[in-house]
Amino acid sequence: MIGPEIERLIQLLSKLPGLGPRSARRAALHLMKRRDSLLVPLSESMALAAEAIRNCSVCGNLDSRDPCSVCSDHSRDRSTICVVEDAGDLWALERTRAFRGTYHVLGGTLSALQGVGPDDLNIPSLVERAKDPAVTEVILALNATVDGQTTAHVVTDRLSGSGVSISRLAHGVPVGGELDYLDDGTLTAALKARRPL
Amino acid sequence: MIGPEIERLIQLLSKLPGLGPRSARRAALHLMKRRDSLLVPLSESMALAAEAIRNCSVCGNLDSRDPCSVCSDHSRDRSTICVVEDAGDLWALERTRAFRGTYHVLGGTLSALQGVGPDDLNIPSLVERAKDPAVTEVILALNATVDGQTTAHVVTDRLSGSGVSISRLAHGVPVGGELDYLDDGTLTAALKARRPL
Repeated sequence: MIGPEIERLIQLLSKLPGLGPRSARRAALHLMKRRDSLLVPLSESMALAAEAIRNCSVCGNLDSRDPCSVCSDHSRDRSTICVVEDAGDLWALERTRAFRGTYHVLGGTLSALQGVGPDDLNIPSLVERAKDPAVTEVILALNATVDGQTTAHVVTDRLSGSGVSISRLAHGVPVGGELDYLDDGTLTAALKARRPL
Repeated sequence: MIGPEIERLIQLLSKLPGLGPRSARRAALHLMKRRDSLLVPLSESMALAAEAIRNCSVCGNLDSRDPCSVCSDHSRDRSTICVVEDAGDLWALERTRAFRGTYHVLGGTLSALQGVGPDDLNIPSLVERAKDPAVTEVILALNATVDGQTTAHVVTDRLSGSGVSISRLAHGVPVGGELDYLDDGTLTAALKARRPL
């Protein structure tokens, strides 16, 4: 006896990551109870995002500006391009404030399982950008998963001959992490890449 | 370097139950990647719900019709009113298909902590409905929490003298539940309310 409008809202909410059918019902109820303070603003914010946000034509980042606010920021170091899987990874790196170069968002990783091939990602535009003599380094900040590493391998392959130096993020002990809880692979990598004090 | 539109979307999404700042970012990214298949439909569905869904003037249920589809269904048994805390509980009871009477949605439970008193709930309209001679039974389907039981007590008090019989849901072993995992209170209640085979 749930009306069709609420039924559809629950069904759409349940497609969000982290929400199942039960938590989608809770979320719908929560929204209904806060019509003016949450439901209406969220609906408007989504409509605005759908209208305004586009992929940057240079790097693939999500922004209402094109080129995006990173690409159009003249204080950024244009000699270094950091390659990430999606905009969420770009946000994570930006939060660290440790990187002042530019980005390139691939829009996913290669995945044999999900049928994502090299042509489905923004790899050609990266190869184009790397041809610019001002670009000297490409940092591959891809996830340390099988798909991420396969993608890193393909990107490295496509960039060979462009003359840029290619690096990847270091493997090692997470800051604040306890050795006892680390997997063997990470510990081995941390040991191999040990640094003199 | 997240644009203000995305920042606001993340901030609003993080107010949904079950989503924190991190999962709200993931949800926002998920929505951006599925602009046409999810972001736009969800935005429209929310706008429609905000526009169309109202509280039923009879029972307080959420519906685009007023009286709601339960109250306006002439096949429902009008002699029994099942009192629930919110529409989510009504949906849960409707899913069982075990109840064919009508409902009354209180819109919350009494809570000293959150400053919810009897006048903040739909108790007066329940007392009005119970005066109808056609109503013979009120079932209190409130949560078995302290606040729920306090509310049940107050509702019982307000209904005294109206001549309706008042009942509550049975306590006992959940169907499919294992005794070993049950708390003492439930087990004691199940033992006291044992049924002859």
